[in-house]
Amino acid sequence: MHIHIISIVPELLDSPLNHSIMKRAKEKGLLTVTVHHLRKWAVNEYGQVDDYQYGGGAGMVMMCEPLEKAINELQQEKKFDEIIYLTPDGVTLKQQTANRLSLKENLLLICGHYKGIDERIRQHYVTMEISIGDYVLSGGELAAAVLVDTIGRIIPGVLNDETSALTDSFQDQLLAPPVYTRPADYNGWKIPDILLSGDLKKIEEWRHEQALQRTKERRPDLLDE
Amino acid sequence: MHIHIISIVPELLDSPLNHSIMKRAKEKGLLTVTVHHLRKWAVNEYGQVDDYQYGGGAGMVMMCEPLEKAINELQQEKKFDEIIYLTPDGVTLKQQTANRLSLKENLLLICGHYKGIDERIRQHYVTMEISIGDYVLSGGELAAAVLVDTIGRIIPGVLNDETSALTDSFQDQLLAPPVYTRPADYNGWKIPDILLSGDLKKIEEWRHEQALQRTKERRPDLLDE
Repeated sequence: MHIHIISIVPELLDSPLNHSIMKRAKEKGLLTVTVHHLRKWAVNEYGQVDDYQYGGGAGMVMMCEPLEKAINELQQEKKFDEIIYLTPDGVTLKQQTANRLSLKENLLLICGHYKGIDERIRQHYVTMEISIGDYVLSGGELAAAVLVDTIGRIIPGVLNDETSALTDSFQDQLLAPPVYTRPADYNGWKIPDILLSGDLKKIEEWRHEQALQRTKERRPDLLDE
Repeated sequence: MHIHIISIVPELLDSPLNHSIMKRAKEKGLLTVTVHHLRKWAVNEYGQVDDYQYGGGAGMVMMCEPLEKAINELQQEKKFDEIIYLTPDGVTLKQQTANRLSLKENLLLICGHYKGIDERIRQHYVTMEISIGDYVLSGGELAAAVLVDTIGRIIPGVLNDETSALTDSFQDQLLAPPVYTRPADYNGWKIPDILLSGDLKKIEEWRHEQALQRTKERRPDLLDE
């Protein structure tokens, strides 16, 4: 998969895209991520890419022209399956969307900053608007990093043990059950006996029961979906 | 505000915490963020901080001892208002939680990795469990970066123009209205006339109407809260 990202703070994405699982995905040749600095397509020699918003009010707006030029130039090299704008008023990201996007070939992500991008780019170029949650970030870069990570880790072959992702929270609409590791007795805090029984079938049942109970307590809404 | 973060991939947090708004918050002395490598409290000379999970199954679990030692050592220097574990089965982050946390003095964030941390640390030390959304990341680091960014930008004085954050999505349970900047006619795509009227009162009414309409269309659930 190839992911292209347009940003005015590309350096913000350096470390999230170059460590841990993302590094592994790149090294295995399963994912390439290219970050483009929007200033490359600035409207003047001062590197301008934003301007005051019409109608007044605080916060700058990212202009149409640089974004349109960037999208057009990148589209000449690649056909994008989706052009995604990361924005708090987009569709809330769920694991199912990440699963679906992990099967695509080419994605283009646009990171907003300040008050966001000019509405006309959203209407005429953007094919998907995604929000990572009901809160506001200082820019779309962290949202893009989150989206790339969620998608990247489930590309087949990225995680060493593929079953590892299948038992995650949300893959079956349940939260994950509690996990424990050595020692079995730590400061007098003991792990549930069942986990020492060696009875794998019973352990699986216990885990399912725990996952169900935790979901009922914390996120009953997931069970209604 | 002082935020401490415990992680086994601290380098992943380098760039998100040192650019843009976060950099500004630090330079103004309004926010300090210290990232601690959990291996400092490893159980042996090989730097071990995780082990296989009891009961079998894919994925490692972060052990009690290193986390307990880390928390205890950090607590000797500071009283934390909250010890927050970032986990997909935590309480879903909303802007209101970020607003509330932005008023605290000291926060300790714990980033999980692999299958997560031993349940006993969650039961005995963690005071708050936060999920940034219904999807799974390869670790808690990006979730911590998101939380720090959401909180950090609304600490009074961090953004240049304080009204800028107040007109964001979610601050009044409404999505933000569309924004436009120059030119007013781009490729024949025109901005709404009202924004050129100069009538600030009418513009405010139009924006509120647009915000309400967008929320009804995209996120009617926000209006019920």
